[in-house]
Amino acid sequence: MRKNSRRNNKMRNSTINIGFMTNPIGSCLIGFGNTKVICSATIDDRVPRWMKGKGTGWISAEYSMLPTSTNQRTDRESIRGKQSGRTQEIQRLIGRSIRSVCDLKALGERQIKLDCDVISADGGTRTASITGAWIATKIAIQKLISQKRISTNPLSNKIAAISCGVVDGNVILDLDYIEDSNADVDANFVLSDDNSLVEIQCTGEKSTFSQTQLFEMIELAKSACEELFILQEKSIKEYFSNEKN
Amino acid sequence: MRKNSRRNNKMRNSTINIGFMTNPIGSCLIGFGNTKVICSATIDDRVPRWMKGKGTGWISAEYSMLPTSTNQRTDRESIRGKQSGRTQEIQRLIGRSIRSVCDLKALGERQIKLDCDVISADGGTRTASITGAWIATKIAIQKLISQKRISTNPLSNKIAAISCGVVDGNVILDLDYIEDSNADVDANFVLSDDNSLVEIQCTGEKSTFSQTQLFEMIELAKSACEELFILQEKSIKEYFSNEKN
Amino acid sequence: MRKNSRRNNKMRNSTINIGFMTNPIGSCLIGFGNTKVICSATIDDRVPRWMKGKGTGWISAEYSMLPTSTNQRTDRESIRGKQSGRTQEIQRLIGRSIRSVCDLKALGERQIKLDCDVISADGGTRTASITGAWIATKIAIQKLISQKRISTNPLSNKIAAISCGVVDGNVILDLDYIEDSNADVDANFVLSDDNSLVEIQCTGEKSTFSQTQLFEMIELAKSACEELFILQEKSIKEYFSNEKN
Amino acid sequence: MRKNSRRNNKMRNSTINIGFMTNPIGSCLIGFGNTKVICSATIDDRVPRWMKGKGTGWISAEYSMLPTSTNQRTDRESIRGKQSGRTQEIQRLIGRSIRSVCDLKALGERQIKLDCDVISADGGTRTASITGAWIATKIAIQKLISQKRISTNPLSNKIAAISCGVVDGNVILDLDYIEDSNADVDANFVLSDDNSLVEIQCTGEKSTFSQTQLFEMIELAKSACEELFILQEKSIKEYFSNEKN
Amino acid sequence: MRKNSRRNNKMRNSTINIGFMTNPIGSCLIGFGNTKVICSATIDDRVPRWMKGKGTGWISAEYSMLPTSTNQRTDRESIRGKQSGRTQEIQRLIGRSIRSVCDLKALGERQIKLDCDVISADGGTRTASITGAWIATKIAIQKLISQKRISTNPLSNKIAAISCGVVDGNVILDLDYIEDSNADVDANFVLSDDNSLVEIQCTGEKSTFSQTQLFEMIELAKSACEELFILQEKSIKEYFSNEKN
Amino acid sequence: MRKNSRRNNKMRNSTINIGFMTNPIGSCLIGFGNTKVICSATIDDRVPRWMKGKGTGWISAEYSMLPTSTNQRTDRESIRGKQSGRTQEIQRLIGRSIRSVCDLKALGERQIKLDCDVISADGGTRTASITGAWIATKIAIQKLISQKRISTNPLSNKIAAISCGVVDGNVILDLDYIEDSNADVDANFVLSDDNSLVEIQCTGEKSTFSQTQLFEMIELAKSACEELFILQEKSIKEYFSNEKN
Repeated sequence: MRKNSRRNNKMRNSTINIGFMTNPIGSCLIGFGNTKVICSATIDDRVPRWMKGKGTGWISAEYSMLPTSTNQRTDRESIRGKQSGRTQEIQRLIGRSIRSVCDLKALGERQIKLDCDVISADGGTRTASITGAWIATKIAIQKLISQKRISTNPLSNKIAAISCGVVDGNVILDLDYIEDSNADVDANFVLSDDNSLVEIQCTGEKSTFSQTQLFEMIELAKSACEELFILQEKSIKEYFSNEKN
Repeated sequence: MRKNSRRNNKMRNSTINIGFMTNPIGSCLIGFGNTKVICSATIDDRVPRWMKGKGTGWISAEYSMLPTSTNQRTDRESIRGKQSGRTQEIQRLIGRSIRSVCDLKALGERQIKLDCDVISADGGTRTASITGAWIATKIAIQKLISQKRISTNPLSNKIAAISCGVVDGNVILDLDYIEDSNADVDANFVLSDDNSLVEIQCTGEKSTFSQTQLFEMIELAKSACEELFILQEKSIKEYFSNEKN
Repeated sequence: MRKNSRRNNKMRNSTINIGFMTNPIGSCLIGFGNTKVICSATIDDRVPRWMKGKGTGWISAEYSMLPTSTNQRTDRESIRGKQSGRTQEIQRLIGRSIRSVCDLKALGERQIKLDCDVISADGGTRTASITGAWIATKIAIQKLISQKRISTNPLSNKIAAISCGVVDGNVILDLDYIEDSNADVDANFVLSDDNSLVEIQCTGEKSTFSQTQLFEMIELAKSACEELFILQEKSIKEYFSNEKN
Repeated sequence: MRKNSRRNNKMRNSTINIGFMTNPIGSCLIGFGNTKVICSATIDDRVPRWMKGKGTGWISAEYSMLPTSTNQRTDRESIRGKQSGRTQEIQRLIGRSIRSVCDLKALGERQIKLDCDVISADGGTRTASITGAWIATKIAIQKLISQKRISTNPLSNKIAAISCGVVDGNVILDLDYIEDSNADVDANFVLSDDNSLVEIQCTGEKSTFSQTQLFEMIELAKSACEELFILQEKSIKEYFSNEKN
Repeated sequence: MRKNSRRNNKMRNSTINIGFMTNPIGSCLIGFGNTKVICSATIDDRVPRWMKGKGTGWISAEYSMLPTSTNQRTDRESIRGKQSGRTQEIQRLIGRSIRSVCDLKALGERQIKLDCDVISADGGTRTASITGAWIATKIAIQKLISQKRISTNPLSNKIAAISCGVVDGNVILDLDYIEDSNADVDANFVLSDDNSLVEIQCTGEKSTFSQTQLFEMIELAKSACEELFILQEKSIKEYFSNEKN
Repeated sequence: MRKNSRRNNKMRNSTINIGFMTNPIGSCLIGFGNTKVICSATIDDRVPRWMKGKGTGWISAEYSMLPTSTNQRTDRESIRGKQSGRTQEIQRLIGRSIRSVCDLKALGERQIKLDCDVISADGGTRTASITGAWIATKIAIQKLISQKRISTNPLSNKIAAISCGVVDGNVILDLDYIEDSNADVDANFVLSDDNSLVEIQCTGEKSTFSQTQLFEMIELAKSACEELFILQEKSIKEYFSNEKN
C-alpha cells in the first residue's frame, strides 16, 4: 500500500507558486508532494564561447540540492570542490529537455540559464525540476517578447516530466524517496504536449524489465503529464493576469 | 531619504517562519526586509578529527547564496570549484557567534552543523543568518533535551546580529543592498541578550570613522537586537506550542 | 545512403581481441567499426567505505578517451583537473549495466573495477564499452572461480549494448560519429540475453520522437545484441581453450 | 605576568628593515617581537578585469605563512590546493586597509600587489602585515612619483595596526601566540594617523565583552599606533637618505 | 642472470607499428619489450599565449599511463584531479627532447602536441615515449611539407632514448620493471644521431655512482640508440612507401 | 665577460646563516650570490601511509618561491591551486638527494620534512636548496642524537650541489639568472663528499652537447662542491659551539 493510500497510477499533489522569487526574470517554486524545487530562468546576453557570432542562442541548466533538503544532510558540493556525476547528469538532462522545444535561432544570440535548487527532496527532484524549468523559461520568454527583445516566440511546445518505476512487480507513478529506494526499475519520462516523447531514461539496476512494463510506464507518464500541462497553463495565466492588475 | 521613508534608526520588517523546512531537526526561514535566508541545524554524531575523544562538541556553519538570490545572477561556487573568501569569512563568523553562547562540554561529543542558504539577498544576509542560526540551534537543542540525548542546556544566552553603516555622513541601521553599496563605513554587530558584545566588524573602506560614530552604531545595534530577541522568543514559543497540539 | 552501403538495420563489423592487455585479470580490445575500446577488469580486495563489513561486493567503472582517439584532438581530463559530465554519465552507466546481472552477495566483499579506455572514437563508444566490459568481467570472474576465491558464479546473464537513432526520419542501427552528429533522436539500449531490457536512454534533443519509433529501435537493438551475445560467447570460449593449451 | 615582564599596555619591540628584499619596488622585513613578516609591493600595469578602462587603480594583497614559521609545522597551501578561510580573511583585510588611505583615481590604471609572507609567527601576524604593507606601498608610490609615472601622491595618510585582547579579565596590548591562544576576547585595530579608525575586528569567542573593555582596547591601540607611525616615518626617511648617498 | 638470458649490453626487442592510430596526423605504437606506448603528434594552429605573434612554433608533450598498464592497477589522474610530479617530469622531458632538434622558427607559428599514452608498462616508458614521439613528429612534419604548409624541414636530426642502470654492481642496458625497482643507479639518456647528447638524467638514490660507471652507461646508450635510429628510419620509409601505393 | 669579472670556473660568494629561523629543529639561510633560500628540517613522527609499520623512516622535501623572489613577480601556487611541474621536479630532486646519504632504517619510523623557500632567486635555487637542506638535515639529526631519540647517526656523507652550463661555447660554473636564460646547455650536479656522484641532470634544449663538455662540467662541479663541503662543516661547527656557550 502506498503512503496516504495513493493508487499506483496517481501523481502526488503538485503545486506551482510563481511569485516566490523576486530577482530572476522567470521563476517558480514547484512542488511534487514533499519535493520542492525553486526553478529560475535568467537571461545572459553572452552565449558560450563556441557559439559566438552564430546568431543562435543557448539554454543551459544547473541543479543543486540544499544540504538540508534531504533526510540525512548532504555535503555541499562547493566544499567538496566539484559537482557529483549525478548532479551533472541531471542538469544536462534539464537543459536538453527544454532545448528540445525551443528554436534557438529565434531566441537570438543570448543564453537562458536555468537554475533548479532543491529545497526539499522526496523523490522526483529531476522531473519536478524539468516541469518547473519549463515554466521559468516560458515566463522569461514572454517578458522578452513584451520588452520587444525578441519578435518570434521560440518555444513551440510545453514540456513536463514524471517518474515511474517497478516496485514489488507493480508499475507505479511518481515515486517518493522510499519507493525510489526500493524500486527494481526506475524511469524518468520527459514529454511534450504534442503527445511525443522528448527523453526516456529507464534503468533496471536491481532487476531487468520487459517491453510490456516499459509500455505501461509510458501510458502512466502520458496521463500524468497531461495533468501537469494543464497546471502549467493555469498558473502562468493567473500570474500574468495578476501582473496586469 | 531611505526607501519607504524608513528612519535611520529603524530596522526593516523582520519575519521568522519556523515550519518551512521539514527535514532538519531545527530550522527557520528568516526575513530582514527582502533578504530571506533558510537557516538549519543538523546534528552530526561525529566531531571534527582534531576534537575526537575530548568529550566536547562543536558548532560549525556553512553559508551559500542561491545563484538567483541576487539582482545579477551570481555564479555557483560548486562550479567554480571553491568557496569565495567572502563566503568563508561569513560562515566562520556565524559559527564563532553561536559557539560564544554554547557550552561545548555540555553539548557532548557531537557536532551541530548550521546551514545558512540565502534565497533572496538585499543587504544584511550575514546578520539575518546569525539571528536565524541561533533559532535553528535553539530548536535543535531543545529537541535533544526532550529526547534525553543531552541533560543540561548548553545554550546560555540568545544571540542576534544587525548591520549599521555610515551613508552620506549619517549613521543608519540595517542597510539594504543599495545603501550598503554606497556606505562609507560598514559594520556588523553580534550581540548577546545579557547586554554584552559578541563580535564587532567595522570597516571604513571608502572613508575612516570616528569613535563617536562607532558608539552611535553600537547604540542602534543594541536597540535593534532587543527587538530581535523578542521576536526569537515569540516564534520559538509559538512553534513548540503548535508542536504539542 | 550510409557509409559502405550499410543497411539501416545493420551493425558495423564488430571484433573482440582478448589477449591485447597483459596485466589485468580480465580484458579485451573491442571494436565496433572504427570505434576501438580497451576494456579491463581488475579485482580490488577493498570495497568502497560505505559497503565495508556488509559481506557484499561492488562493481564500478571508469571511462576515458585518449586525446588522439577523436578526429579533433580532445583535451586531457587529468590536465583540466576533472572528468566531464559526459564521462561521468557514461561510466555510471557502464557500472550500473554490469551490476544488473551480478549477484553482489555471491561476489563477496571485493570490488571489480572496470576500465574502458577509448583508443579510437567513431560513435558508439559507450555501447562498445559496456559490451566489452561484460567480457572483461566474465573472464575475471571465471578466473576467481578457477582460483577458488569465489564458489558460486555471481554472473547470471550476458549483457550487450548498441545505439540506435533517427536520422532524416529513418530509424537506424549502430550510428557512426557522422550519423550521430546528424541524428534527431539518439538512443542507447543495454540488453540482457534473457530477452529483457537493462537500460534505455533515448533523447530527442533536435526533435521529439513517437512511441512507434521507440519500438522500432528496440527491435533493431534486440537483433543486434543477439549477434553480440554470440560473439561474446565465441571469443571467451576460444580464449580459455587457448589458455589451456 | 607577561613574558619578559611586559606591562599590559606595552607593545613588543618592533623593527623595520627596508633593504631586505632586492627585487620588489617597495618592501620591508617587519618584526613585532618574534613575529617577522616580509611585506612587498609590486606594480602591475594591468588592473583586474572588472576595472578595465575606468582610469582608476587597485590595491590587492596576498598573505601566506612559511610552513616552518610556526611552532608546529603548518601544511603548505599550494599542496592542499587552496588557501584557507583564515588566509583569505587576512589578505582581504590587508588590501582593504591600505586602500582606505589611497586615492585610487590618482594611482591611475595600475595595480599595487602587496605580498605579506610570514617568516616567523608569534601572534600579531596580520597587524604586522598591515603595518609593513603600508611601508612597502609608500616606498613603491614614492618611486613611481620619482619616475614621473604618477603626478599626484595618492596616499593621504599613514596606516598601522595592532592587536588587543582580554586575557584573564585584563585588557592587554599586542598579544603573542601563547596569549592569543588563551584570550577570551581577541581584537585587531587598524588606525590612520589622522586619529580615525579604519577597521575594528573584535571577537569574543570564549566570552563576550563589554563596551568599556572595547573602549579600553581602542585607547591602547591608539597609543601603540602612534609609536608605529613614528617608526614608519623614521625608517622610510633613513632608507631614502641612504638611497641618495 | 637477466630475464630470457639477456646480456647486460643488450636492448629488449623493439618494435614500431605506425598504422595503429587513425586520427592523428603522425603516430606510432612503439614497443620496448613488454612496454608499449602510443605516441601521437597533432598540429594545433594556435601557439601558447606567451608565444603569440612571434612567428615561431612550439612543441609540447603530454604523458599518461592507462590504469591497467601496470601490474597493480594505477589510479586515474583525471579522478585524483591532477597529474603527479612524475608525470609532469616525464612530459617536460619528452617535449624538451624533441624541441632540441627542431628549428621552431622554421616550424612557423603552430604547435605540435605530442601525446604519449602507455598501454603496457614494464620499465623504460619514458625512453620509449621519446623514441616514438620523434617518429610521430617526423611523420607529422613530412605531411605538413607534402601539404606545402611548411617549406623548410625544421627537424635537423633524429632523437632516441634508452635507460641504463647499475644493478648489483653491474652496468646494464634497458632495464625492465623488476630491474628498475632493484637498481642502485637509474639513468636515462637522450641522444641525437649526430653522436651528441641531448639529455642525461642519472640518479643514485640507493647508492652513489662513479664517473667510470657514468662513462660505461653512456657507451651502452650510444650503441642502443644507433640501433633505434636504424629502426626509426626503416619503419618511416616503409610507412610512406605503403602510403604511396 | 661574466658579472663582476667572475672567471668561468668560479662560484659566486656563498654564505650560510644557521640562526635565522627559530622554530624548526634544523635550518639555515643559504646564499649563492643573490640567490637566498631558507632551508628547514622538521621531524614528523608519522611516516607516509605506504611506509607504516616497516620500521624505517623517510625524507621528503617541498620547494617554493616567494612571489617577490623573482625580478618579475611570480604568481602564488596556492592561488593557482597547484604546484607547477618545475616545483615538483625540484622538490623530488631535493628529497632524493638527501635520502641518498641517509640510512632510513637507522632514522627509525619518523619523517624528516625539508622545506626550501626561496627568498631571492638569481639562478641556482635548486642547488642552493640541496646544499642548505643537507645542513638543516644534519642539525636536526644531531639534535635527535643529543636527545637520544636515535642512537646511530643515519647520515653517512655530506651532500652539496652546483650548476654548470655552456654559454656561447664556454663551460661555466654556478650560473646566475641571466646566464641561465642564455645557456645552450644547463646542468645540475649533486655530489657526495666521498668523491662520488649522486645525481646528474644535464639538458641541451637549445643545443646538444658532447661528452667532453660533460666531463669538463663534472670537474668544475667537483671543485665547487669541495668548497661547499668545507663551508658546511665550518658553519655547523660554529653553530653548535655557540649553542654550547
